[in-house]
Amino acid sequence: MKKGPGSVLVLGGARSGKSRFAERLVDASGLGAVYVATARLGEDEEMTTRIDHHRARRGPDWTTLEEPLLLPELLVREAGGDRVILVDCLTLWITNLMLEALDVEARCDELAERVANLPGIIILVSNEVGMGIVPENRMARDFRDHAGRLHQKLGEVVDEVYLVAAGLPMKLKG
Amino acid sequence: MKKGPGSVLVLGGARSGKSRFAERLVDASGLGAVYVATARLGEDEEMTTRIDHHRARRGPDWTTLEEPLLLPELLVREAGGDRVILVDCLTLWITNLMLEALDVEARCDELAERVANLPGIIILVSNEVGMGIVPENRMARDFRDHAGRLHQKLGEVVDEVYLVAAGLPMKLKG
Amino acid sequence: MKKGPGSVLVLGGARSGKSRFAERLVDASGLGAVYVATARLGEDEEMTTRIDHHRARRGPDWTTLEEPLLLPELLVREAGGDRVILVDCLTLWITNLMLEALDVEARCDELAERVANLPGIIILVSNEVGMGIVPENRMARDFRDHAGRLHQKLGEVVDEVYLVAAGLPMKLKG
Repeated sequence: MKKGPGSVLVLGGARSGKSRFAERLVDASGLGAVYVATARLGEDEEMTTRIDHHRARRGPDWTTLEEPLLLPELLVREAGGDRVILVDCLTLWITNLMLEALDVEARCDELAERVANLPGIIILVSNEVGMGIVPENRMARDFRDHAGRLHQKLGEVVDEVYLVAAGLPMKLKG
Repeated sequence: MKKGPGSVLVLGGARSGKSRFAERLVDASGLGAVYVATARLGEDEEMTTRIDHHRARRGPDWTTLEEPLLLPELLVREAGGDRVILVDCLTLWITNLMLEALDVEARCDELAERVANLPGIIILVSNEVGMGIVPENRMARDFRDHAGRLHQKLGEVVDEVYLVAAGLPMKLKG
Repeated sequence: MKKGPGSVLVLGGARSGKSRFAERLVDASGLGAVYVATARLGEDEEMTTRIDHHRARRGPDWTTLEEPLLLPELLVREAGGDRVILVDCLTLWITNLMLEALDVEARCDELAERVANLPGIIILVSNEVGMGIVPENRMARDFRDHAGRLHQKLGEVVDEVYLVAAGLPMKLKG
């Protein structure tokens, strides 16, 4: 059985304040957090800065993990403790899966299955990337399709969904 | 006089679940449907698969038509029967009009005029394409402008408007 | 002390109807307006047409100013009168700042500070540009980041925030 608010999907555009909103959800829970960065450290400057920032700011109640690929496995391992799991972000995870030529749809199904069934609070941050013009680049189109499909899958199983713009959440579910 | 829910515009990004949401509106109506695909058959693989899927899944209450260009004319012909008309999608229709060098704005005015005045339930699915960076390509910019203007025109005359993300609708009107 | 509705941020995609919605807010106020165009006259055809349109349509209660760069200074000068200040749009202002190699973040901080503290009604129109694929072009990425950060800063200090699609507003704050 899932306890309390359970699972949350936080969508938003670039620099929309989605990560900050997700952190506020953690703060509001009154619990510690396992912060899961899907960035490969050192490859994304802004994300590296953000991770360092988290490490510096947070006390012993805030653990930072890096997991670019094995996200469903990490959730199985970490879920059910007394900490919120905050994953930031899913679109970077999809990029990593594509770069490794892994089966993205299968892995996304697995993630949705885990999120639907694991205990505790899981907050997933992801980029809304589908509201612009069709990209000319094939890989960008595939990426966009994978992201949209994952958001739909998660939209079905999570307890709450938010779309963030200008730092402000619109509640889509919950 | 327009009956019941009347006309509906369903907007959403790529793979947002907008088509599936529109189909649920059809199911909720309890009526059969005329499914109007604006794709030129064979040119869009995913759309062809989707049309085949519709044909296979639906029984005698679900008719599939293909109309890449003469959408206002088709609405005049089909409206007022005992079936919902579901058009998927308007952005592909705009693309087709542009490729034929037709007067897109005039045709969009005509569509909005028809939707405003025809009887029965008409559900229109379209892509939100204006929330990314300005495209460098002139044709993409024109396309984006046409789509935005059509959505505004329809937003004025239809009875309900939804924006779909992660498979979930935000109601903008109705 | 801020009076009445105070400050408003109107976000929307390209051709979403955001400017028209902002003008309706002016009309609803019953006050005259100072319309501030951030476009460099003559460089953007559509914007020039729009400014001409404003000039022709509006009577003596509607003043049009052009200010591509010194927006915070203009607000200080114009705020507190008996007219609504309507700025259209902030994303063009960011583009202008970038082209002049000015410190965009510092200027955006200054704008947010002014909007937070100046009297009267200030309505700011801006493009939502962060919900598409990551642009390959570095300058486009920087622009997108600046715009997103400015929207967050303003989202904190203004009284009302709207996201417009198909000419219809979704209220995010207020």
